[in-house]
Amino acid sequence: MRSRRPDSGREQTIDRPQDQKPSSNAGCGLLSVVGLGPGDPALCAPEATRSIAEADAVVGYSTYLDLIAPELLDGKHVLSTGMMKEVDRCNAAIDLAVAGENTVVVSSGDSGVYGMSGLVLELVQSRGLQDAMDVRVVPGIPALAAAASLLGAPLMHDFAVVSLSDLLTPWDKIALRLEMAAKADFVIVLYNPRSKRRDWQLDKALEVIGKQIHPETPVGLVRNAARENQSVYVCTMARLDTSIVDMLSILVIGNSTTRIIDTKYGLRMLTPRGYDKKYDLGSS
Amino acid sequence: MRSRRPDSGREQTIDRPQDQKPSSNAGCGLLSVVGLGPGDPALCAPEATRSIAEADAVVGYSTYLDLIAPELLDGKHVLSTGMMKEVDRCNAAIDLAVAGENTVVVSSGDSGVYGMSGLVLELVQSRGLQDAMDVRVVPGIPALAAAASLLGAPLMHDFAVVSLSDLLTPWDKIALRLEMAAKADFVIVLYNPRSKRRDWQLDKALEVIGKQIHPETPVGLVRNAARENQSVYVCTMARLDTSIVDMLSILVIGNSTTRIIDTKYGLRMLTPRGYDKKYDLGSS
Repeated sequence: MRSRRPDSGREQTIDRPQDQKPSSNAGCGLLSVVGLGPGDPALCAPEATRSIAEADAVVGYSTYLDLIAPELLDGKHVLSTGMMKEVDRCNAAIDLAVAGENTVVVSSGDSGVYGMSGLVLELVQSRGLQDAMDVRVVPGIPALAAAASLLGAPLMHDFAVVSLSDLLTPWDKIALRLEMAAKADFVIVLYNPRSKRRDWQLDKALEVIGKQIHPETPVGLVRNAARENQSVYVCTMARLDTSIVDMLSILVIGNSTTRIIDTKYGLRMLTPRGYDKKYDLGSS
Repeated sequence: MRSRRPDSGREQTIDRPQDQKPSSNAGCGLLSVVGLGPGDPALCAPEATRSIAEADAVVGYSTYLDLIAPELLDGKHVLSTGMMKEVDRCNAAIDLAVAGENTVVVSSGDSGVYGMSGLVLELVQSRGLQDAMDVRVVPGIPALAAAASLLGAPLMHDFAVVSLSDLLTPWDKIALRLEMAAKADFVIVLYNPRSKRRDWQLDKALEVIGKQIHPETPVGLVRNAARENQSVYVCTMARLDTSIVDMLSILVIGNSTTRIIDTKYGLRMLTPRGYDKKYDLGSS
């Protein structure tokens, strides 16, 4: 399935908006990979809602399907699968599209950030369907953006995004990325920081990062962003209690300029963009 | 304005949804910092649209205000400012909120990723208004997510986001981040890659990155994502013509596993998550 072509720089696609519904070929339905955003329907893009409304079939992990208004799923072929069944789920969605159904695969957040868009494209290619099937990716608000909005403004400067799940990635590679990101003074966003089964990775990650940065560096934790039982917690590296972190959490570790600010909503993080060096921002 | 507090780990905010409109204090209006998404209204979250509809005043760079349906701005106090006037713009918005107007500051993309949320929070703090004013950040679909959706699935694995604008950041710091990100095999997303005045940074950045990665590594370029004159271009590091890159572009440089795939829409990028090592994905 290696398909990189050395002379591939010649082709160019211009002015072909992806939201235009392509005519289906060979009887295949349109296959859309849709990000629902963090959870609150008010943060789900109209394009995502419209894709679901216009679909014949909707496929997703049951927790993601629960984020969709039930009336939107009325009369549709809904295929719900358990976690860790990603390959089966995407293959089932492709089967439905091959059978002529306009099919949507849903993810929470953005389907393009550790989401299902990659696996869908990979399977479409490996099944030789790339010329027969229209595949469309509809972006959503990623968990990192939802978490950042609740934490104040931690992502005003360069940041690195790392998943601590070592189910599909060797731990050494994850650790190298954490070390380099901390060395280069990136703000660091951690996805999948901890689960019941993966209980040592976060402590190890903080140890790797902690060797490079100050213990008073601010850290923000958001659980269930834009969902029920949302919680937001800001402290310092030295004080983070990792036992409160779970797989529904996003962790943001500041860079050397990030500071904790007191707001009406509680403590929050601010990574200044650097305007204070160029302009007088008033008393400080 | 340094306000980090060493004992700050004690406080915790739980179950306080940010979309609940707080009662205004001291006569101040609510100040919302809103991300409009990449441009297409179909990718703007309902919460952002509602914030604008309910506001008395809307403040933003003129190009961002043009993304809003004119009828949504009818009868509102609209304050449009030129680029590079960020501090004036945010101060004007704060002035309006102090005067009791519910005020929205708009950015394109996500206001929390290189957006206005940081500067607003910084100025609210430096003006001593943090206890008097409710400031709310409404996330949007960031440019990186819009670009990724058009490029296929480049962000299925860990990625680093770097702005090449050295107006507020020393170039050496930017170069170090690029070097470390490439060394650690991150997918790299470049914001603000090139403008008429900043014309050498991108070539220099690619030189720094190019020392660490293979010349056949895929690169994706998206201009005007989800706007008029959108263009999507995929090639290899060795073949990228940087003269076609401008300040409305997002550039995505793959990691060592990213490959170029041929789709109905043209060439696209795929960074596999790693399922193929665990599962048989069929013929490949």
